[in-house]
Amino acid sequence: MDKRPIAVFDSGLGGLSVVRHLRESLPNEDIVYFGDTARVPYGTKTRTTVVKFALEDAHYLLRFEPKLIVVACNTASALAIDEVRRESPVPVVGVVEPGALAAAERAGGGTIAILGTEATINSQAYPKAIAAAGCDAPVFQIACPLFVPLVEEGRDPNGPIVRMTVDEYLAPLRQRDVHVVVLGCTHYPLLREPIAAALGTRVKIVDSGCEAARTVHSQLERNGGLCRESRIGTMHSYVSDNPARFRAVGSRFLEHPIEHVELVDPEHYIR
Amino acid sequence: MDKRPIAVFDSGLGGLSVVRHLRESLPNEDIVYFGDTARVPYGTKTRTTVVKFALEDAHYLLRFEPKLIVVACNTASALAIDEVRRESPVPVVGVVEPGALAAAERAGGGTIAILGTEATINSQAYPKAIAAAGCDAPVFQIACPLFVPLVEEGRDPNGPIVRMTVDEYLAPLRQRDVHVVVLGCTHYPLLREPIAAALGTRVKIVDSGCEAARTVHSQLERNGGLCRESRIGTMHSYVSDNPARFRAVGSRFLEHPIEHVELVDPEHYIR
Repeated sequence: MDKRPIAVFDSGLGGLSVVRHLRESLPNEDIVYFGDTARVPYGTKTRTTVVKFALEDAHYLLRFEPKLIVVACNTASALAIDEVRRESPVPVVGVVEPGALAAAERAGGGTIAILGTEATINSQAYPKAIAAAGCDAPVFQIACPLFVPLVEEGRDPNGPIVRMTVDEYLAPLRQRDVHVVVLGCTHYPLLREPIAAALGTRVKIVDSGCEAARTVHSQLERNGGLCRESRIGTMHSYVSDNPARFRAVGSRFLEHPIEHVELVDPEHYIR
Repeated sequence: MDKRPIAVFDSGLGGLSVVRHLRESLPNEDIVYFGDTARVPYGTKTRTTVVKFALEDAHYLLRFEPKLIVVACNTASALAIDEVRRESPVPVVGVVEPGALAAAERAGGGTIAILGTEATINSQAYPKAIAAAGCDAPVFQIACPLFVPLVEEGRDPNGPIVRMTVDEYLAPLRQRDVHVVVLGCTHYPLLREPIAAALGTRVKIVDSGCEAARTVHSQLERNGGLCRESRIGTMHSYVSDNPARFRAVGSRFLEHPIEHVELVDPEHYIR
């Protein structure tokens, strides 16, 4: 039994869609979240910069003495997971490996499509992780840079602009016999409906954040790291900018009102 | 005669649309540009954070001993121009005041519409500057958060998704008798065509970046600060991340290939 919190970081508020799954599957765990809203997004930035930011985010969270760190941001998982693992004294779970593993399992050798940010797609992290899982299914990647701003703006996912954008990005998949599509960015689960509508009901959808929450659960269970007390876990969020926007937009990702958001001064996370 | 360079900063590469006008009107001046591509965008961030970033950007540029600093970013001009002026030993020209002044002059008392980022619109900087110019025309503001990602993605400005988005944002203007619309973000001049199409030919369009270049010209002329040598001025760009993307995407804003881009390490601009 381990009552220390689970620490989660993200480039901004998207990681709250991962926290939603964590809270569903581990409701009695305490969660500490850091959102780097002063420097969001990471998806258009280089490896060097994303590694620097991710290490700063992880180091900031270590002050809460967590039992595990979740890299909820796909871009940071794709570009910086090795560096974060190297510097972290506690286990680190990213979203790319669990998402890739689930896709490999469910594809049955059929084509896998990865949707993600420019940086995630260019890193080739998903195809590499799928191959590392011993899966030789064809992998087809699509960067969808408009999905994040469409979601952040709070648009109706079934409105005409979202529908048209989803249809346009996914058009190349229509000629391929896609078995599995991976939502390789924390914002994309909020577009699950139009994505499913564009691809048809036969295509399986993998939400990397949901798979990461499963990995956290099983890893803690295996190591005797679960908090076995019967209680409701707390959640505290820290952001590098704009707590008001984090609270307003983030609650759609968490599907729950957000309490306890604190602004963090740069001297506390910049190294 | 003053051969020192003109310094320009922006949250990223959008400010190159302002540089384009500077180079047209002052082709023999040297220009030094800093784009804060590691922390772009500023338009969704708070005043505190934008002020901190803008001061860091301006201080970085002071090492080149410029004769004048242009705050090419509308969000930084709206939120941080006073602070930058207070700390700068040389004159500082923003984009909001020149844009507001031009709108006030051309509106003839008719309604003015401001298009900008969330932060620019919320700051009320344009309505305040229009009122300060002695103009009591009605001012109507619209935040257009999708315009920046649409432009950065390099989409056809006359394609269906851009057209539909422009039409949707500008719909509230159709019931008003708008005389002037201000492009209050450095990215929006690249959407000038669909904006003009949505509003009709009678509406005058003010490009704040173009007006800022005029202000720089007249201010240098007045102070005897022009470089009167007959030559082609140089341009050097410095970015906090991703010089390759800056070069590729930025050339569309500059309407010219970009040479001399250097990556700047955080220790050189973070204070």
